[in-house]
Amino acid sequence: ISEKGQSPSKRLCDVWDFARQDTNRVTFALKVGLACLLVSLLILFRAPYDIFGTNIIWSILTVAIMFEYTIGATFNRGFNRALGSVLAGVFAIVIIQVAVSCGHTAEPYIIGFSIFLVGAATSFMKLWPSLIPYEYGFRVILFTYCLIIASGYRMGNPIRTAMDRLYSIAIGALIAVLVNVTIYPIWAGEQLHMELVANFSSLADSLEECVKKYLSGDVSEHPDFSTTVMDDFPDEPAFRKCRAMLNSSAKLDSLANSAKWEPPHGRFKHFFYPWAEYVKVGNVLQYCAYEVMALHGCLHSEIQAPYNLRCAFRSEILDATNQAAELLHSLAKDVNNMKSSLQTSLLKHVHVSTERLQQSIDLQSYLFT
Amino acid sequence: ISEKGQSPSKRLCDVWDFARQDTNRVTFALKVGLACLLVSLLILFRAPYDIFGTNIIWSILTVAIMFEYTIGATFNRGFNRALGSVLAGVFAIVIIQVAVSCGHTAEPYIIGFSIFLVGAATSFMKLWPSLIPYEYGFRVILFTYCLIIASGYRMGNPIRTAMDRLYSIAIGALIAVLVNVTIYPIWAGEQLHMELVANFSSLADSLEECVKKYLSGDVSEHPDFSTTVMDDFPDEPAFRKCRAMLNSSAKLDSLANSAKWEPPHGRFKHFFYPWAEYVKVGNVLQYCAYEVMALHGCLHSEIQAPYNLRCAFRSEILDATNQAAELLHSLAKDVNNMKSSLQTSLLKHVHVSTERLQQSIDLQSYLFT
Repeated sequence: ISEKGQSPSKRLCDVWDFARQDTNRVTFALKVGLACLLVSLLILFRAPYDIFGTNIIWSILTVAIMFEYTIGATFNRGFNRALGSVLAGVFAIVIIQVAVSCGHTAEPYIIGFSIFLVGAATSFMKLWPSLIPYEYGFRVILFTYCLIIASGYRMGNPIRTAMDRLYSIAIGALIAVLVNVTIYPIWAGEQLHMELVANFSSLADSLEECVKKYLSGDVSEHPDFSTTVMDDFPDEPAFRKCRAMLNSSAKLDSLANSAKWEPPHGRFKHFFYPWAEYVKVGNVLQYCAYEVMALHGCLHSEIQAPYNLRCAFRSEILDATNQAAELLHSLAKDVNNMKSSLQTSLLKHVHVSTERLQQSIDLQSYLFT
Repeated sequence: ISEKGQSPSKRLCDVWDFARQDTNRVTFALKVGLACLLVSLLILFRAPYDIFGTNIIWSILTVAIMFEYTIGATFNRGFNRALGSVLAGVFAIVIIQVAVSCGHTAEPYIIGFSIFLVGAATSFMKLWPSLIPYEYGFRVILFTYCLIIASGYRMGNPIRTAMDRLYSIAIGALIAVLVNVTIYPIWAGEQLHMELVANFSSLADSLEECVKKYLSGDVSEHPDFSTTVMDDFPDEPAFRKCRAMLNSSAKLDSLANSAKWEPPHGRFKHFFYPWAEYVKVGNVLQYCAYEVMALHGCLHSEIQAPYNLRCAFRSEILDATNQAAELLHSLAKDVNNMKSSLQTSLLKHVHVSTERLQQSIDLQSYLFT
């Protein structure tokens, strides 16, 4: 965690590894750089500046704010921004007309009160659970409204200002979207797909790891569970992946949310692709992961079954585990290849092997006494 | 989930309930409204506008962007914004000097290349795991840099523009912080404290609920686990709270992260209050919650213990459960009152009762055959 004690060369190595693990990271960084460069050309050349004047800086702001890692997230953010700006603009123009028609003395009061109202209303609405994904949209409404009202009151001709600004925002948005979609696109749908497959695999791996550790009997090394929790279980890599999967449950949600905004692409050739199903499957997987976490908890708990008892059911336990892990792996492969091969035989194997384990426990229950 | 079919009065009721559940929500909304109103006074009156000119709109932007739910989050965001702006400003001024000294033809190339570089570098760095909390800061660096460079290149006198803008941002930040701290402050530390106590309680409740359901034997109603997962277990309120706690594990992290920025307040009278410990305790509680989730999974699984077998160990199971729940409740009370009363006796009770359960299972293992 603390990185201060590292030598510079070691740190450079880390950065290199980080970039190599997922080259999309480098792609993303270069794409942002390119988009910024393209939009800054608007200012470096004279022609666009002569047309739009200082409003052109809004294109830069738009690119910097709108450019997200995946295409879906960029569209989503762009939509939030566009809808928020339009709503704020319409409302601002209405209020300005009302204020002007009410005469010169009432005008500042009406404007002040409307700003208070918009601030309070948008802030309250963005706390509402089903509106939380649109938090950014409400923020945009608030500051766009304030900006338009303020410019209108002091600088005159708010419509002209608003339109110039709208054009330059549109230019910025266009550049951001074009760069994001045309150059090495990173699709949220593809990421979601890969994430789900990885979840299947890490669940299977951690199940096998847990059981292997249970049967090998080298458990008593860590008597104090709470300190081990802090130490992050360095010797159990698959378990840590499984826990990371549980902790990043919001990731599937946000990826599915972004994927909804993407057009058909690559392997996902349908409009209205059922991205929500990925989240549902992920949820069911989570429940399986809870069981693995509980097994892992038993592995590190104080009361332990004696070693000879564990060995008594060794073959049955191993069999049940392997069948379950195989089922998970084959499901992962099916999801990955987007094929459904009915796994009834594998499912039956899991059933049979768990029942055999149960029977053997029942039969040899004299061992417990 | 779908709210379209509701009548307006029903929806109004929902909103009223939502506001009453946690009045902080209303407080927050009104505070944002007030801060926006105060900052818009700067424009509605003539004097500040005469001094700062159009740059005054940056105070409005700052309030709208910086005002967060808790005080710590506001400070954190303000710090990100301030440091980002300063870094970007220094770098921009250096680059401008370099570009000017290189002559008129080289200038646009140097500026364009530097924009590309800043865009790529900030985007790459914000993906680095330990820098993710500062994502907003990197965004600020990027767009501030582009803005200053662009204004400097086209509008001349970048230092003067930058300083005016800095003053108006400082005014906006000051208003945001003052309103947030002086009027009904919402402290992240207090929220974190309450969240942890609630986690203890919901864990105890869901444990009791699970066991009660197990012993009452009305399990077979939901044979299909996967559809029940989707139905959200409507008849198990405590379990749903426990699951919500697991899904919101990031919440403790972000609250602790915000709380670090807060000065001593209320019950938390020390500088450098150990907020990180809350996260650690929350982590250990998560492991307990995994066990409860696993129990709950057994409750809804296909293979079930027969009803008479459950009743055989009824008193032991109930005893162990009640002891554990009592321990959790008393820990919750202790955390809430910030007192440490050594709960050795309670802990011993839990131990004794679990061992009694184990013994009785061992003794009556003939029942299993």
